[in-house]
Amino acid sequence: MQLTKFSDYALRILMHLAAGDRQRSAREIAQAQGLSFNHLAKISQWLAAEGYVEATRGRGGGMRLARAADDISVGALLRKSEAGSPLVECLGENGGCCALKPACGLLPYLAEAQEAFFATLDKRSLADVMSRKSGLAKLVEDVTTAPAT
Amino acid sequence: MQLTKFSDYALRILMHLAAGDRQRSAREIAQAQGLSFNHLAKISQWLAAEGYVEATRGRGGGMRLARAADDISVGALLRKSEAGSPLVECLGENGGCCALKPACGLLPYLAEAQEAFFATLDKRSLADVMSRKSGLAKLVEDVTTAPAT
Repeated sequence: MQLTKFSDYALRILMHLAAGDRQRSAREIAQAQGLSFNHLAKISQWLAAEGYVEATRGRGGGMRLARAADDISVGALLRKSEAGSPLVECLGENGGCCALKPACGLLPYLAEAQEAFFATLDKRSLADVMSRKSGLAKLVEDVTTAPAT
Repeated sequence: MQLTKFSDYALRILMHLAAGDRQRSAREIAQAQGLSFNHLAKISQWLAAEGYVEATRGRGGGMRLARAADDISVGALLRKSEAGSPLVECLGENGGCCALKPACGLLPYLAEAQEAFFATLDKRSLADVMSRKSGLAKLVEDVTTAPAT
């Protein structure tokens, strides 16, 4: 069972931004975390469009959280970012082509389990994530300011 | 959030076998469901090794369920078939390479949500799946005996 890299990296961006109080560019985050800039740039645009981050263009520009961290639900974010990634192909938009689908008794149970997954995370905020373990803010500063190797 | 095709097809094979009381070969199921024979053959071997099906070789051979359908838990099966497919890369065996991992407060929440997913399905058996909707047994017979097009 896999989340998309899109969701994984979206959460990493938000954690990176929540760890400090200054703006950070997608390039800076990509470099610090060793991820593809192009990929992060695309995800950052999506995060801005969904109202999670505010972006300032130009020199010295970057992103910051557009809401308080305790107002960002992990479950709510994943429900959106995973919307195009159905648990099994027949739950997708095109419905897949499983021969058993017309009488399938499995799909309702899978949908129920997926809902339990999201519901567990609905009640977890970015603030919870940041406070669950200590040292994340310092780690982010360390990886961000470390000289490129 | 996606299950592997391996898990998806493993469940389809079990549903196919549970729908009738005779042996069926991987080739027959592949043909009826329009899936790759090579893929289903590999999954069938895994299902046999895990004690879900019994296979008879040779002419007229095939598979049948090795346990009663109410003794096959969907959750227990998925816990095994999804073991090599971590929710995010840093939960995998090699641990991924996320720069934030040493202080990440997200992983425990993701693990908790994944557990909620599996726990929901632990209590659902193949017998529940077969009885949740009517018509699956007939549908399986129809697709199995339909002339190839």
